[in-house]
Amino acid sequence: MKVQVHTTLKEGVLDPQGKAVEAALNNLGFSGINRIRQGKLFDIDLDTDSKEEAEKLTIEICKVLLANMVIEDYSVKVIQDN
Amino acid sequence: MKVQVHTTLKEGVLDPQGKAVEAALNNLGFSGINRIRQGKLFDIDLDTDSKEEAEKLTIEICKVLLANMVIEDYSVKVIQDN
Repeated sequence: MKVQVHTTLKEGVLDPQGKAVEAALNNLGFSGINRIRQGKLFDIDLDTDSKEEAEKLTIEICKVLLANMVIEDYSVKVIQDN
Repeated sequence: MKVQVHTTLKEGVLDPQGKAVEAALNNLGFSGINRIRQGKLFDIDLDTDSKEEAEKLTIEICKVLLANMVIEDYSVKVIQDN
């Protein structure tokens, strides 16, 4: 079962990487960009064939390792295999 | 208009971050995880109200700055604003 996790900084948390990208695009002459926030993406391949089990395991992994719950939100999307 | 960009390493490109996460989860006692690949996520807020324009601008931004086209793939998803 394939699962995709997004971790993003919570609203209000400073995002220096996003700001750097904004500044770089500005310097490159791009306009019309209001805001960029950068997050992380994890493509996970799990052994299980159960959607519920995959979701449960992934949420646990997020809480323990992938997301810093103090400053980050996470979202889990199970992508059916086949 | 809100746009979401995913950049992921191409198949075959070594992903040390993903491997580190796999090893860490293994050390933490998790099992049943076949593979983890790590990528980047960009949430972009654009001025334009045109879906086509948003997509075109974002693809240009990806090619110029966000994705390293030699080793990375990118995908663009326009998220309609209301």
